[in-house]
Amino acid sequence: MQTIAFIGLGHMGLPMARNLLKAGFNLKVFDLVQASVDELAKEGAQAASSAADAALGADSVVTMLPASRHVEGLYLGDSGLLSALKPGTLVLECSTIAPESARKVHKAAAERGIELLDAPVSGGTAGAAAGTLTFMIGGEAAVLDKARPVFEAMGKNIFHAGPDGAGQVAKVCNNQVLAVQMIATAEAMALGVANGLDPAVLAEIMRQSSGGNWTLEKYNPWPGVMENAPASKGYSGGFMAELMAKDLGLAQEAAQVTASSTPMGALALQLYRLLLKQGKGQKDFSVVQQLFVE
Amino acid sequence: MQTIAFIGLGHMGLPMARNLLKAGFNLKVFDLVQASVDELAKEGAQAASSAADAALGADSVVTMLPASRHVEGLYLGDSGLLSALKPGTLVLECSTIAPESARKVHKAAAERGIELLDAPVSGGTAGAAAGTLTFMIGGEAAVLDKARPVFEAMGKNIFHAGPDGAGQVAKVCNNQVLAVQMIATAEAMALGVANGLDPAVLAEIMRQSSGGNWTLEKYNPWPGVMENAPASKGYSGGFMAELMAKDLGLAQEAAQVTASSTPMGALALQLYRLLLKQGKGQKDFSVVQQLFVE
Amino acid sequence: MQTIAFIGLGHMGLPMARNLLKAGFNLKVFDLVQASVDELAKEGAQAASSAADAALGADSVVTMLPASRHVEGLYLGDSGLLSALKPGTLVLECSTIAPESARKVHKAAAERGIELLDAPVSGGTAGAAAGTLTFMIGGEAAVLDKARPVFEAMGKNIFHAGPDGAGQVAKVCNNQVLAVQMIATAEAMALGVANGLDPAVLAEIMRQSSGGNWTLEKYNPWPGVMENAPASKGYSGGFMAELMAKDLGLAQEAAQVTASSTPMGALALQLYRLLLKQGKGQKDFSVVQQLFVE
Amino acid sequence: MQTIAFIGLGHMGLPMARNLLKAGFNLKVFDLVQASVDELAKEGAQAASSAADAALGADSVVTMLPASRHVEGLYLGDSGLLSALKPGTLVLECSTIAPESARKVHKAAAERGIELLDAPVSGGTAGAAAGTLTFMIGGEAAVLDKARPVFEAMGKNIFHAGPDGAGQVAKVCNNQVLAVQMIATAEAMALGVANGLDPAVLAEIMRQSSGGNWTLEKYNPWPGVMENAPASKGYSGGFMAELMAKDLGLAQEAAQVTASSTPMGALALQLYRLLLKQGKGQKDFSVVQQLFVE
Repeated sequence: MQTIAFIGLGHMGLPMARNLLKAGFNLKVFDLVQASVDELAKEGAQAASSAADAALGADSVVTMLPASRHVEGLYLGDSGLLSALKPGTLVLECSTIAPESARKVHKAAAERGIELLDAPVSGGTAGAAAGTLTFMIGGEAAVLDKARPVFEAMGKNIFHAGPDGAGQVAKVCNNQVLAVQMIATAEAMALGVANGLDPAVLAEIMRQSSGGNWTLEKYNPWPGVMENAPASKGYSGGFMAELMAKDLGLAQEAAQVTASSTPMGALALQLYRLLLKQGKGQKDFSVVQQLFVE
Repeated sequence: MQTIAFIGLGHMGLPMARNLLKAGFNLKVFDLVQASVDELAKEGAQAASSAADAALGADSVVTMLPASRHVEGLYLGDSGLLSALKPGTLVLECSTIAPESARKVHKAAAERGIELLDAPVSGGTAGAAAGTLTFMIGGEAAVLDKARPVFEAMGKNIFHAGPDGAGQVAKVCNNQVLAVQMIATAEAMALGVANGLDPAVLAEIMRQSSGGNWTLEKYNPWPGVMENAPASKGYSGGFMAELMAKDLGLAQEAAQVTASSTPMGALALQLYRLLLKQGKGQKDFSVVQQLFVE
Repeated sequence: MQTIAFIGLGHMGLPMARNLLKAGFNLKVFDLVQASVDELAKEGAQAASSAADAALGADSVVTMLPASRHVEGLYLGDSGLLSALKPGTLVLECSTIAPESARKVHKAAAERGIELLDAPVSGGTAGAAAGTLTFMIGGEAAVLDKARPVFEAMGKNIFHAGPDGAGQVAKVCNNQVLAVQMIATAEAMALGVANGLDPAVLAEIMRQSSGGNWTLEKYNPWPGVMENAPASKGYSGGFMAELMAKDLGLAQEAAQVTASSTPMGALALQLYRLLLKQGKGQKDFSVVQQLFVE
Repeated sequence: MQTIAFIGLGHMGLPMARNLLKAGFNLKVFDLVQASVDELAKEGAQAASSAADAALGADSVVTMLPASRHVEGLYLGDSGLLSALKPGTLVLECSTIAPESARKVHKAAAERGIELLDAPVSGGTAGAAAGTLTFMIGGEAAVLDKARPVFEAMGKNIFHAGPDGAGQVAKVCNNQVLAVQMIATAEAMALGVANGLDPAVLAEIMRQSSGGNWTLEKYNPWPGVMENAPASKGYSGGFMAELMAKDLGLAQEAAQVTASSTPMGALALQLYRLLLKQGKGQKDFSVVQQLFVE
């Protein structure tokens, strides 16, 4: 039975780790928050006292950390985790970070004979709990084949996006489109309602027409249009506006490297920052609807 | 057998009228371009010498004209068509025009006892030819019930959007979302490819993820990703960029009336105008992809 | 001594009319608000009971109305004021309206042998009171020469912008640049202060450098940087955000006619509408600063 | 007589170094391009074989490098220039780089007892040649006092922007405002001309009104309005569009650190990148005018 070290037990990491446990993997877990470690220990995981302790003797390592600097801080440098891993260890780095940063960690891993994949997820905490996450994966196809059983215990759609860093690129591209179409939908809903339309009727017409998109399908930002959407529950739950701002910022970092022009994505970032200034960063990202209504 | 007057036989009107003929309606047709009238006359329609001549004795009137001024010019005023119609005539005004303009024509029709619907379409020339258009309809539900057989001979999805003008509002809302997500998709494709991803792989990942939208489903703007999309045929066919600019302009007119803020829609309009300045107005609207590649 | 009819005694019109009185003109005044008429009557003007009554026998007419529809409503049509004026009357139409609307009124005036100028102002209520307004004037140079003494009694800079409607075009171009640079300045102030700079120091550096503009010179949006600016008085006084939104809307109307792309101007309009949604429409337009601070 | 090491003899550095020579300083110069070193050597400077060689025994060091990575690469690390300088050396780091990067170099300098100022310039190659540059300076006031004679040999306006990194912050704020108002001016010029105005008349009206800004004063983007502006010389000379894109990118980096919303600045960056895609990166930045005309 394979042993997996899981490092980073936050809102996403905890339910992901739990799904690995349920799938029968031996799990060694670490997080700076001891309570999260204890919680999983009660469910059968082995508590580790540090990231290195968790990784000791593990066949695979899964990490789920907040940002580029945490990932670089964990893996790189003379006392970094990559130096402690035995050659042949499989690393599934699932954090959402800058593609540049992912490529840097890939390079360092390759120099030490460690197989690493950048594998950011989408699907939110609900998808993490249900084991239905989408993984967008950068790295070698052969490595992905080995890692597939681990991914499948946590997710439903496992995409090979391309070479090192490609998982992160696919993620920021996807989330940039998502943010823009959420705002476009919110604008259109407000415009239509101000002009006398019933929000549910307008939402349904656009959903079935060429304006159709994922937000109209699953996640309408107008309160009451979809019973289970965050918009109908005070914009609670879901995917926080400040995390969307983070992802849009990563997209801009990637765009900076290639001098790519992304007017819609750039504007989306600025509008999310306006929301953050209004103290709405911890609301679901569909709260952008409130910019457009009185 | 019902007699229908069809006025306006352009790229959209001609195939729409043809579908009415095929469905067995008596058709009287008029257009300023005699060749279009002659073409339909050969197929069984009755050629009229003017709009009023076409409408004489018709049970219903269908109009498909370029812009608000043509519609107001045709229907309103002392010598307008509304004055010539007998009370009880059913008018299906299918042009895409400003909601304000549609409401003005509705009001004048009501004063003369004429039942009128604003019923703009989406689906492009392909949908017009195939009889699979979407109609977004404003006006009374009871009137729509009477007109339904005529709509069904030309389209597949027949939506009742709401009261007078609501069809136009739904149309501009839908097309504004469409334009924004087309640009967002084009930006993301360019960003991903510049960062080393395969365009087909990126397109497929986004299509199946939360970035999914109609353009990724049917109409990818990157050449070669979808064999039958305009992008793979030199951006020919489809829905012209200048018509998208027109619809985005109508959305801004509607937004002006209600002081609605639509940052994404407004930016989309400006970007389409940049394309028009570059002489690309008659290319398919997915040509916006070219703004983002060298 | 010349007799002038002054119609429209609002925040701007009242002090403008008062300056004409002070300059020694015979003044006949009308407004729908009787109190304004009475106020000027006490100061020596002749109260009129209607616009036509005011214009009866006047050598010149000055109008200062809120929007295009008021101007068209006053002048045009069979019972419009143009029909009542004697040929040779000089009309100074000082409202800020759509260039299209101004051209329509010019055309109707020319048909009746009336000499008309479109002459919107900038300078705000302070400039109106001080007689230091800027006039941007469209129409014939020879007509402007005749009208110059009237303008000079109300303003300081009298610009001949070009042919009919050119005054309105110059006004919307100017105000669009003003709005954009106000927002740009506010953004930069917030960015600099968030990065540790003293607002007064940053303001002064930019003012003297290539970022210099009128808002940095006269009207800094950061509270406390300029003692007498609206920003230092709770954003009261000055030029209301909702009036700036109106002017930006007129600019978009003009841009629609010529299919001009104005990405900055369009975005400025959308941001001002966000402010209006927040209930800040009656604050000075530099209140846009508050979008960018917590 | 003070000895200054000057490192980085590009388009800006070369004329800046020449002005130090003219002012009577002993100059030791280094650049990777030998021809530039030779050119100054002929004029009296001492050619150095490396940056460290130039700095050996110098009282002050001036550096003028392309980007953050060059500056960090030169100064930092165990074999970096800071390690080679004697305590008490005065460093004037004049490159335009990220504020974060400047703060990093400041910190490393302080740890070694080296006095350093971040001192980016504005004024372009013309200002560099004429010795009329503007310096925006971050660091201690007392250090600036010591360095003042060196700055005054190269520039006219010497601003103390604030603490470490503040020079860079002021520079990116200023240049962001500059870019936005250049685009706003270009948009307005195109809009006005499309609506029938004479470009020179419109430019003059706005220059004297509330739309007035540095670009209208010195640098009008419409060809022919100002004889000596780059716009009248095929957009050659001046400040290259790709350098403006670089500075706007630095502004976005600074905004990312503080989560500042800068919608206008972000849009300006995207529009400049569109120009770069069109192959116009090496034209003067007023070439943005061409986006808005056919």
